[in-house]
Amino acid sequence: MNAEIISVGTELLLGQVVNTDAAIVARALSELGINLLYSSVVGDNPERLRNAVETAIGRSDLLIMTGGLGPTADDLTKETTAAAAGKKLTLHQPSLERIQNYFNEKKVSENQEKQAWLPEGCTVLQNDNGTAPGCAFQSENGCAVIMLPGPPSELEPMLRNYAVPYLKQGQAFTIVSHNVHIYGRGEAPVAQMMDDLMDGENPTLAPYAKEGECYLRVTAKAHNHEEADQMCQPLIDEIKKRLGGFVYSVDVESLEELVVAELARQGKTLATAESCTGGLLSKRLTDVSGSSEVFHMGVVTYSNEAKEQLLGVPHEVLEAHGAVSPETARAMAQGIVKASSGSLGVGITGIAGPGGGTAEKPVGLIYIALSDGKETWVAKRAPIGRTKSREWHRHCAASQALDMVRRYLAGLPVIEDHRYEGDRTCRP
Amino acid sequence: MNAEIISVGTELLLGQVVNTDAAIVARALSELGINLLYSSVVGDNPERLRNAVETAIGRSDLLIMTGGLGPTADDLTKETTAAAAGKKLTLHQPSLERIQNYFNEKKVSENQEKQAWLPEGCTVLQNDNGTAPGCAFQSENGCAVIMLPGPPSELEPMLRNYAVPYLKQGQAFTIVSHNVHIYGRGEAPVAQMMDDLMDGENPTLAPYAKEGECYLRVTAKAHNHEEADQMCQPLIDEIKKRLGGFVYSVDVESLEELVVAELARQGKTLATAESCTGGLLSKRLTDVSGSSEVFHMGVVTYSNEAKEQLLGVPHEVLEAHGAVSPETARAMAQGIVKASSGSLGVGITGIAGPGGGTAEKPVGLIYIALSDGKETWVAKRAPIGRTKSREWHRHCAASQALDMVRRYLAGLPVIEDHRYEGDRTCRP
Repeated sequence: MNAEIISVGTELLLGQVVNTDAAIVARALSELGINLLYSSVVGDNPERLRNAVETAIGRSDLLIMTGGLGPTADDLTKETTAAAAGKKLTLHQPSLERIQNYFNEKKVSENQEKQAWLPEGCTVLQNDNGTAPGCAFQSENGCAVIMLPGPPSELEPMLRNYAVPYLKQGQAFTIVSHNVHIYGRGEAPVAQMMDDLMDGENPTLAPYAKEGECYLRVTAKAHNHEEADQMCQPLIDEIKKRLGGFVYSVDVESLEELVVAELARQGKTLATAESCTGGLLSKRLTDVSGSSEVFHMGVVTYSNEAKEQLLGVPHEVLEAHGAVSPETARAMAQGIVKASSGSLGVGITGIAGPGGGTAEKPVGLIYIALSDGKETWVAKRAPIGRTKSREWHRHCAASQALDMVRRYLAGLPVIEDHRYEGDRTCRP
Repeated sequence: MNAEIISVGTELLLGQVVNTDAAIVARALSELGINLLYSSVVGDNPERLRNAVETAIGRSDLLIMTGGLGPTADDLTKETTAAAAGKKLTLHQPSLERIQNYFNEKKVSENQEKQAWLPEGCTVLQNDNGTAPGCAFQSENGCAVIMLPGPPSELEPMLRNYAVPYLKQGQAFTIVSHNVHIYGRGEAPVAQMMDDLMDGENPTLAPYAKEGECYLRVTAKAHNHEEADQMCQPLIDEIKKRLGGFVYSVDVESLEELVVAELARQGKTLATAESCTGGLLSKRLTDVSGSSEVFHMGVVTYSNEAKEQLLGVPHEVLEAHGAVSPETARAMAQGIVKASSGSLGVGITGIAGPGGGTAEKPVGLIYIALSDGKETWVAKRAPIGRTKSREWHRHCAASQALDMVRRYLAGLPVIEDHRYEGDRTCRP
């Protein structure tokens, strides 16, 4: 089955928006084993859009359109595509009612109503995160056409919950993928370690980089889900054997999800004391719904005074070693465990940049401490190689703090010296 | 001048990589006033690539290719494009020497050398951040063709330093754009208010949505920068007149940047006390480099105990009104001003969901308080219509807190009742 994506929107051609929609759809098609041959962007221009749709319907088995389903005059994906595919639009009453409910109004404007007009006979794909429904139908020449809304926050769940199941209906086989998530070893060394496993055709193995982490995707194709799933298992076991404690999960997408679940399972709590990460660690922990069970308190102590006042970091420690030092990180972690009366505490202090670095304490130097009230571990991240962004240093420091908690909870050594993606982690 | 982008790479069609290259090039073209009509992705397939290049050269004045210039066998952009444009490849000695220097080797592999073979008679675009040079030439039928390397860290500087100057040589005019950023009025009502201003051809006006905010872009074309800039001003003034305090900036991209700069200008500090936003507000403030001047302390008080202990929220208030109440938000803001000895304090408490909502206190109900130590304002966000994500509620609550600070610092009413994108803000 050959597929094609057309993303609609002048904002894409002006470079105001990066086309993440195309990547999200492409990844989903790849997981379904559907070949994507073309992906293109067309502006809000009916003539060029119609040409693009006609070409696509003529050469592809599946056309996925993203964007241009909204209420404004330049949203013309539906009208143009339906016309090119030989379909009329009709009012879909349940979608109109959803829109009315959305705005809490009996009568919505003509523009808003326009979104409920859909190609006759189509399968409506419900929008659980916005007003414009999506749809799926067959063109006269047998090309399957799917239209999805532009905002990624609407497109992604609609794709996952409605469009992918729609596509799976017609498939003779099932694809099952599992992601083995890794922290502390980069994509390149991991790929090297798995080199002999990468030639398999079923299951397949592919490495992917993720901000400061990486993962391996194991994919198998079979007649049913159970069979495909079983085909993945021996490969997953082999990966785990080779990587040991660097594997943090199979299919749990983030360190924060894993850590929150594991803290809850063990009946432990975690408190955070952040300086250079400025709340990013607590933000990531509380991204996880239900984190309130295991996370009760965090402090962001940007100034020295705040470190003394909220965490009891001794004035002498700050004086003697400075705010960015293993001693301060240690005192922060110990201070927050005490202040929170909790099980575990993390302290992070460093220089995220771009300003504030010196020869002795360069941008990217970050100390991360974990304390359980009795013992305290301190890790040091030091920059090597090409300059990294403030965002990168902050993200990686928060990830590493989460990884230290993960390792503690798993009974692994809390710090494993490693060199990773331009940053080196070691004991200070 | 009509332009077209072709991005080459199977990794794009597999969704492994988001096509940021296309967005970077599109933005540069838009700033140059060059119309981009098509942008497409082709995999590492010589036949489909050749077809795409031939179509592009036939219909466009300018073709920009990104990716596929590297040393490996599947890098075939140059060979394929040169053939389609009727050009031979010749060895470019200075590029070969750069590659030899890069690897610090007199003799590089055949694969590496391949990168120095370029279309005869082309302008070579030097790669200051990698090995593969870019190039620019005219096809036989007069289409300008530019090839740029795929990694954004190589493409972006090559585009800025070599390709844009190459394109400017032929141009008679300059384009200037300004973005007017708005908080508290949605894209649709703003577009309606500006309806009569949207038909202009020079300058032009276009509305864009941004997560929980929106902005208007004003663009003018003239013979020089100053002239184009002056043409934008009357339209910007008119927008400001119509929207008043809802305009938060011209060209400053985020509320947090604006707030940090304005706090610094006024010599004030801000401290944060967050519950449901879990550190997101302090994270956004500290995203801004240099925020340490105005942000010294934040606390994340997820539990009631933490609210009492760190912020001195009276036990009776929590008992009588609950953690999610205007009274608790007020006490949190007042508590953090006191604890931080700072100028301003924000308190946020609410239900971000997806769990934890009740009929009386539904998901999306969030109270945001701002205190200057003397006076305290409390705003209420109440959900209307369709369910929103945890991420959305948290993001919007943090944005609104920043907007309240912005309004306070600008001498505007701190709370302006408004209805916005499915959330209603009002006084509690």
